Amino acid sequence: MRDVHARLAAWMTRLGMSVRVDAAGNLRGVHPAAPSTVRRLLIGSHLDTVARAGAFDGVLGVVLGIALVQLLGRRQHPFSIEVVGFSDEEGVRFGVPFIGSRALAGTIDRDLLERRDTSGRSVAEAIRDYGLDPDAISEARVADAIGYLELHIEQGPVLERLNAALGIVTAIAGQTRAQVTFTGMAGHAGTTPMRGRRDALAGAAEWIGAVERDAQGVTGLVATIAHVEVEPGAGNVIARRCRATIDIRHADDGVRADAARRMAATAKEIASRRGLDIEWEPRLDQGTVAMDPALTAMLERAVVRSGTPLHRVASGAGHDAMIMAARMPAAMLFLRSPGGISHHPDESVMEEDVAAALAAGLNFLDELAGTLS
Amino acid sequence: MRDVHARLAAWMTRLGMSVRVDAAGNLRGVHPAAPSTVRRLLIGSHLDTVARAGAFDGVLGVVLGIALVQLLGRRQHPFSIEVVGFSDEEGVRFGVPFIGSRALAGTIDRDLLERRDTSGRSVAEAIRDYGLDPDAISEARVADAIGYLELHIEQGPVLERLNAALGIVTAIAGQTRAQVTFTGMAGHAGTTPMRGRRDALAGAAEWIGAVERDAQGVTGLVATIAHVEVEPGAGNVIARRCRATIDIRHADDGVRADAARRMAATAKEIASRRGLDIEWEPRLDQGTVAMDPALTAMLERAVVRSGTPLHRVASGAGHDAMIMAARMPAAMLFLRSPGGISHHPDESVMEEDVAAALAAGLNFLDELAGTLS
Repeated sequence: MRDVHARLAAWMTRLGMSVRVDAAGNLRGVHPAAPSTVRRLLIGSHLDTVARAGAFDGVLGVVLGIALVQLLGRRQHPFSIEVVGFSDEEGVRFGVPFIGSRALAGTIDRDLLERRDTSGRSVAEAIRDYGLDPDAISEARVADAIGYLELHIEQGPVLERLNAALGIVTAIAGQTRAQVTFTGMAGHAGTTPMRGRRDALAGAAEWIGAVERDAQGVTGLVATIAHVEVEPGAGNVIARRCRATIDIRHADDGVRADAARRMAATAKEIASRRGLDIEWEPRLDQGTVAMDPALTAMLERAVVRSGTPLHRVASGAGHDAMIMAARMPAAMLFLRSPGGISHHPDESVMEEDVAAALAAGLNFLDELAGTLS
Repeated sequence: MRDVHARLAAWMTRLGMSVRVDAAGNLRGVHPAAPSTVRRLLIGSHLDTVARAGAFDGVLGVVLGIALVQLLGRRQHPFSIEVVGFSDEEGVRFGVPFIGSRALAGTIDRDLLERRDTSGRSVAEAIRDYGLDPDAISEARVADAIGYLELHIEQGPVLERLNAALGIVTAIAGQTRAQVTFTGMAGHAGTTPMRGRRDALAGAAEWIGAVERDAQGVTGLVATIAHVEVEPGAGNVIARRCRATIDIRHADDGVRADAARRMAATAKEIASRRGLDIEWEPRLDQGTVAMDPALTAMLERAVVRSGTPLHRVASGAGHDAMIMAARMPAAMLFLRSPGGISHHPDESVMEEDVAAALAAGLNFLDELAGTLS
């Protein structure tokens, strides 16, 4: 993170932007407007990634924000532009996503600061370890911006199937995340008969299969179990505990809530039948978030003016824009993901799509300037 | 390991035993016989444990070996006694059990020395890290002993159900261990539809369920999957790879081999149907090992003479005795495991059973002396 901060900050500084890192570890660079103008537009995305990730999820949107400032050159708009590189969107370390954008939205609370990673280190301690002050986190908050624009790869196959370079995001699908822990009884793999075992991993495996079948049966529903820890984890010791994460998404909040209830009930039924204890700890319950109609209409006009066909899509992935939308008008532009591949080293983006996004982005800044002048 | 070596070596030294650590990290103490006697009896068990283990699995047998030497006092037998505390029986670090006893049996080969732990460190490097010389491992070999006696907790419920303090082990059930790796395709949990996913963890979970049902259907068969690693392991990234261990045991080698073949075929079928790659890497294929009839008969007479009722049991757990039995006569005595609990902090042993084992052990030494004089 320090390396990417150093490289992007150097670039922003060369462009005359004033750069700082806020108390949540977000990299922030301001391109000033004409003197006495207090209006500010935010353009941002995140700088963190999942493990073994691709090269574009997140950072591309930050790079494009700075590139837009560079392309603006000496042109002055009636608003300053603050480019934000969020510190933690994926939630890899603490199991809670959007920490960076929550700081800007002012929705970081004591609970979040005290959440701990697997080594027992809290968010507040991690912030301190990085050399920042968690007690100053409220200074990261933005109360007065006129809007938030995010450019991001789609991370799915929809635009490619439409043969479209860009997509206007209408809404971001809600997500439920939880940690689910099955606890049974350890025992010797060679001397404990199959009947009477209380095998936490066998229970979790049955549940993983049930969740998969459930989600396959509901149109548009996705449910993913992708992180599993087994204790003690020795090949010859029956699993005493199995901890799994679940990630459930659907564009309709009611469908998602029903699915989460069913999947929790299934876990309980399986655990009870197998003599296991079960714990379902909510980690996130984020409703579907619509983008701002007025700002999105400007983005649509900007795309059309740049000569790129207009396509509207819903986002299956969560984005910082859903957090920012609670505090200010937010709009989001997707770039096509070749093969729909993301969260994988093969993740890519096409140069002509990046050019189209920059052209649309410049037009968007003009559109916004027109409404303000 | 250094701590337990220090404590046991100090005790052995006080008893006049000569103590060393061989090139495989086994602690070895010799109680000499009358001058000019070259015969040697080995008494041993292992000093390592699984993670979050109990306090008796392994080390009790080493402690009882030293206690027998102490109880012998000034009595001299026509054989020396070498008490061995094996360094690695459980196979936790390298996925291969019995490293300590294999060194005494002379069955450590280049492949084993080059096997690596999850951090990439090899057995040879681990031996060097400990301050020992893997090139000198052949010096650990024992070619000339008259027999091997192991005392160990049963780790199962059989003796308790028989209301028996001690059990004579007739044979040690064979085991198959393998590492099974499912490889699919990572993808974003929110944007990748359920149909068309190649989810390595979902495949592994289906297989874990199938293995459990299979083993439940065959009398005496146990199959355990108790170690699972998922890559990349982030909650919002579909699992690209899932690596699991399997442990299969049965007293009949044919039944065990058939089960291993079926479970591998099931893994292949599941992987193929789900578009996953599958790898089945054998880690152990250990046949059922019978204990030595003559030495076991002496042990039986010793138990009867000590006034403890005679019970014969087969061992579902593997023991160093099965490795030693390939090179010399081996016999094994079980102590009752309360609740059948082992590989768990609640593992225990009853003081009166320990007293019965020591009485039987002293009688065994007398029996053996009688046959040699």
